[in-house]
Amino acid sequence: MSSECLSVVILGAGNLATNLAVAMAAAGLEIRQVWSRTQSSAARLAGMLGCRWTTDVTGLDDAALYVVCVSDSAIASLLPQAVKGHEGAVFCHTAGSVPMSVFEGCGVRDCGVLYPMQTFTRSRIVDFGDIPLFVEHSSPRAASVLSDVARRLSRRVMEANSETRGLLHLASVFACNFSNRLYALAGQLLAGRGIPFDVLLPLIDETVAKVHAIPPAQAQTGPAARGDANVIDKHRSLLSGEKEMLHIYEVMTKSIMDGRDKF
Amino acid sequence: MSSECLSVVILGAGNLATNLAVAMAAAGLEIRQVWSRTQSSAARLAGMLGCRWTTDVTGLDDAALYVVCVSDSAIASLLPQAVKGHEGAVFCHTAGSVPMSVFEGCGVRDCGVLYPMQTFTRSRIVDFGDIPLFVEHSSPRAASVLSDVARRLSRRVMEANSETRGLLHLASVFACNFSNRLYALAGQLLAGRGIPFDVLLPLIDETVAKVHAIPPAQAQTGPAARGDANVIDKHRSLLSGEKEMLHIYEVMTKSIMDGRDKF
Repeated sequence: MSSECLSVVILGAGNLATNLAVAMAAAGLEIRQVWSRTQSSAARLAGMLGCRWTTDVTGLDDAALYVVCVSDSAIASLLPQAVKGHEGAVFCHTAGSVPMSVFEGCGVRDCGVLYPMQTFTRSRIVDFGDIPLFVEHSSPRAASVLSDVARRLSRRVMEANSETRGLLHLASVFACNFSNRLYALAGQLLAGRGIPFDVLLPLIDETVAKVHAIPPAQAQTGPAARGDANVIDKHRSLLSGEKEMLHIYEVMTKSIMDGRDKF
Repeated sequence: MSSECLSVVILGAGNLATNLAVAMAAAGLEIRQVWSRTQSSAARLAGMLGCRWTTDVTGLDDAALYVVCVSDSAIASLLPQAVKGHEGAVFCHTAGSVPMSVFEGCGVRDCGVLYPMQTFTRSRIVDFGDIPLFVEHSSPRAASVLSDVARRLSRRVMEANSETRGLLHLASVFACNFSNRLYALAGQLLAGRGIPFDVLLPLIDETVAKVHAIPPAQAQTGPAARGDANVIDKHRSLLSGEKEMLHIYEVMTKSIMDGRDKF
């Protein structure tokens, strides 16, 4: 089956669903319908795509591929309803932490996962071309359809089983969610003095530019990497009134010091 | 005094000294001499700048400005030796965590700090133009010289006293050193499966691109931000053999959850 004319139904209308659907449409796939629990979300995304929408998961249009982009905890309950009447189609979900076993007992034979390793915001449409896309599948037919779709979306398509994908998701929580939280905490420290967050941006940008060129373990700088106990003690006393930040400071400082011994 | 013809001696030849000296030379200042404790470092940086070098801090050349770019803990012991015979010059250091009081008893009247909020690597020469430069000074003359030099180096010059500068340095440890450590840990998780670190780069890039556009507290995504206990429990079990990473996971997850209540 060529994906040129592949018809797709998107289930979900959140950050990932929006970005994925827009990228699929741009890649020449036929987005036939959007389902969302809420009418306004379904209508919004369908409007962007110029396709039909519904809030009734038991009355989905026929399509070759159904892409389930809902929150991890909603996938298991949604699948059996969505599959009913479309058992011959290919179904996939897009969640890092949900294993293939979620499809068991749903009545679908050709199924799999398309996991894009990226952080998505509805209002920021990102270029899928460079996003690593990890594919898993239950059958040769699912493999063919999902790999074909993945290659139309991205230049970086890899296979990953459920266990590896879970680890990829965990790694992305460290690299993305946790580092973003550190930015927020750094901003909070400065906000108390009326200093805007954006004074940190050149530093943040350079930190990232470095790890494009050298491995992060080698790029490590700062008082913990130097073992500078004086500065570390000064920081501890600055944080003495901020229990949560002090705890993070201790844990991360120890981790950097432990890391020094390994590299 | 115009900085057009300002003569400068640089003390230190490390990551910051190298970047600052190159930027000062490019800004038209006359770098007259480099001092470093080790001959090879002094000769290397002097070679880049085409100036003299020495390893004898008691025999520095005469200059209008002496810039002390050595490790925080070395500043206090180096200063009295460097000042001797050059008491009429302006002295500054470049350290985030070292207060102005370090100059007390050194015999110099016109002194201050030029603190660039950036992470420096000797092998990566960065553009100083966008780096926030924080200035502190002991006298109108020091203010005039240091502000003039700062404005020649950067478009983002601000004043900050020692207390605020210490806080800026602490914020930069969170935003830069700690986030880099998270990248290293994420890479470690993937290395165990033979997955290269660079699959994380699009995610890391987008995380940073987001905080250029929206405040990090609003940009927060991931299982902790969604309160997704299922995914968090899966991550905990994946990390059950990695005590240090599990600890970081718990602390950062709690911090993100606490942050949700505030925004």
